Amino acid sequence: SDGVLLRGGSLIPAARRAFRKLLDRNNNFLFPVVFVTNAGSCQRHHKAQQLSHLLDVQQVVLSHSPLRMLKSFHDKCVLVSGQGPLTDIANSLGFQKVVNVEQLREHHPLLDMVEHGTRPKPPPIRWETNLQLLIDVLLTNGSPAGMHALAASQLPVLACNIDLTWMAEAPSPRFGHGMFLLCLESVYRKLTGRELQYEALLGKPSLLTYRYAERQLRLQNHGRKLSTVYAIGDNLMTDIYGANLYDRYLSQQHAAMTTTTKLVAQGTGSQVTMTVPEEEELVSAAAQCRSILVCTGVYNPSDGNTAVSESVFHGHRDLVLDLELVEPHHVVEDVEEAVDLLLQRENLTSDL
Amino acid sequence: SDGVLLRGGSLIPAARRAFRKLLDRNNNFLFPVVFVTNAGSCQRHHKAQQLSHLLDVQQVVLSHSPLRMLKSFHDKCVLVSGQGPLTDIANSLGFQKVVNVEQLREHHPLLDMVEHGTRPKPPPIRWETNLQLLIDVLLTNGSPAGMHALAASQLPVLACNIDLTWMAEAPSPRFGHGMFLLCLESVYRKLTGRELQYEALLGKPSLLTYRYAERQLRLQNHGRKLSTVYAIGDNLMTDIYGANLYDRYLSQQHAAMTTTTKLVAQGTGSQVTMTVPEEEELVSAAAQCRSILVCTGVYNPSDGNTAVSESVFHGHRDLVLDLELVEPHHVVEDVEEAVDLLLQRENLTSDL
Repeated sequence: SDGVLLRGGSLIPAARRAFRKLLDRNNNFLFPVVFVTNAGSCQRHHKAQQLSHLLDVQQVVLSHSPLRMLKSFHDKCVLVSGQGPLTDIANSLGFQKVVNVEQLREHHPLLDMVEHGTRPKPPPIRWETNLQLLIDVLLTNGSPAGMHALAASQLPVLACNIDLTWMAEAPSPRFGHGMFLLCLESVYRKLTGRELQYEALLGKPSLLTYRYAERQLRLQNHGRKLSTVYAIGDNLMTDIYGANLYDRYLSQQHAAMTTTTKLVAQGTGSQVTMTVPEEEELVSAAAQCRSILVCTGVYNPSDGNTAVSESVFHGHRDLVLDLELVEPHHVVEDVEEAVDLLLQRENLTSDL
Repeated sequence: SDGVLLRGGSLIPAARRAFRKLLDRNNNFLFPVVFVTNAGSCQRHHKAQQLSHLLDVQQVVLSHSPLRMLKSFHDKCVLVSGQGPLTDIANSLGFQKVVNVEQLREHHPLLDMVEHGTRPKPPPIRWETNLQLLIDVLLTNGSPAGMHALAASQLPVLACNIDLTWMAEAPSPRFGHGMFLLCLESVYRKLTGRELQYEALLGKPSLLTYRYAERQLRLQNHGRKLSTVYAIGDNLMTDIYGANLYDRYLSQQHAAMTTTTKLVAQGTGSQVTMTVPEEEELVSAAAQCRSILVCTGVYNPSDGNTAVSESVFHGHRDLVLDLELVEPHHVVEDVEEAVDLLLQRENLTSDL
């Protein structure tokens, strides 16, 4: 939503006008709308505030929201690592046996000894603590009090938000959750000689997030299927890449009712079988997803397709840099122009 | 010293007997002795305590001690990152313009924003903070308030203690400083597409540490050169690898008075020109260094040469796994046997 609807903390003028065109006289949306952000809970309320008078919770998709669909994990014991009220979040997503790093740390005080000679300290949890304890859990196959050893199969890892960096007030990008994952991957590779495997990557541009978002749209549509999903965003590597990846997925799936494994090989990391069988889901899935790039955020038309032109790929390890996937179907000035475009394409006229 | 002289916190019996053989009736060492540890300041006192009645400060070489020799950096502004009273340590080593991460952080509060939406917190410093700020300093060529950009030349990085892991009370190894460096290297590579370059790696097995240690031995020897240096240790990848690397260096240097660049290419990371010219130093350098492995520490003869047999190399990126370098010249039971061996080889008889 930042860069599309919000700048700093406030709604941008074009967004106000766009909303007017999306809402009928009773402030109901003319058609299903969801807002997909890679933010975690931290900004959930923050972000929700500016839109709360317009949106209900079902319309906001956070990086971890698609975990609701992964019911096969909900009865498993899960270790949650990250920021915010993680245990509450995990419970609200459906997980019944949740352990957080702080609990693990208190239960095994000797494990958190990254600093030579230092006795365990009170929170705040630090990267080194989470890295060490996650590695302990992975290399002991879930029994961190035991000795490290490489099991035949690695415990499943579900990663929410793979953004390497993000823009804050500092002049240069700050480290995001993706940077933590990079460190975890590097440490795991150094210690084991193997690559860390992800059971699923969540948040834009991951496929799971777009499949979940469409499901939310369908709910608003009273289960009726949608012909076209329009994805409006300002970030080529997340919004556009993800929308195009989902579009490619839809066309491939409709062409041949195969499973997602093909795409997994392409590195979407979404090999998780969802609660609804592919086929059943696909019958109701949209025919296509159109990506619309706006210029009110990180994308600056003057310096062109930065994601492609830059020599270094800053996407996650498991994302392939496919030039096609960072080519938006449409480029517009702002979200109002984006709404005009889709209204026109759908032969809908604004209420006003 | 742990694993050779100490176990847990106390002197092992063989060490007591060994000391008796090394000391004359007035408790003076029969010949020059130094104790080389990769510990930083944290354990300095701790470790010194058990030996303090026998040793003076000059006889204890810590991971950062060789920085004394790198006089060319002493008048430069240096950012110190790590544990303990770093500013005091740096000053005591000869650095006059020292900035620590906490000072940098206070001076640029916006830089430490790794956690989405979180305002800077009070200490303790965490890995993510040090990683972010070190990257900011490197990618702004020393002006962290500026924008990230890749300069032609990278600011010099001096790394003390490259141990990937260390053994504490936990059943499996804990992360050491080497793991922090691994993360720094991974983040730098991901952001820039280049490899982080080290100006110097310090601590065993780095060459600089052995050159510094011999210099300390020579001081005790009233400047007179030593024919043979005996290095006693329990760790193949640090004590033995380093002693053999130093032995190879001595023979190569004596064979042809070249600079260390050849060895740098082999990845010792010690391309720093020391205050004394190579040639001048080599005239007084020992002819050889003999490595003696003891079995009272991490090396367990029953599971053989673990450093070699293990499929994954846990040494630092810049160390080449050269089978020759992890082959000790001698293997003995404990430090007493090691002392007996060197006394006999030098035709010295114990006082007792």
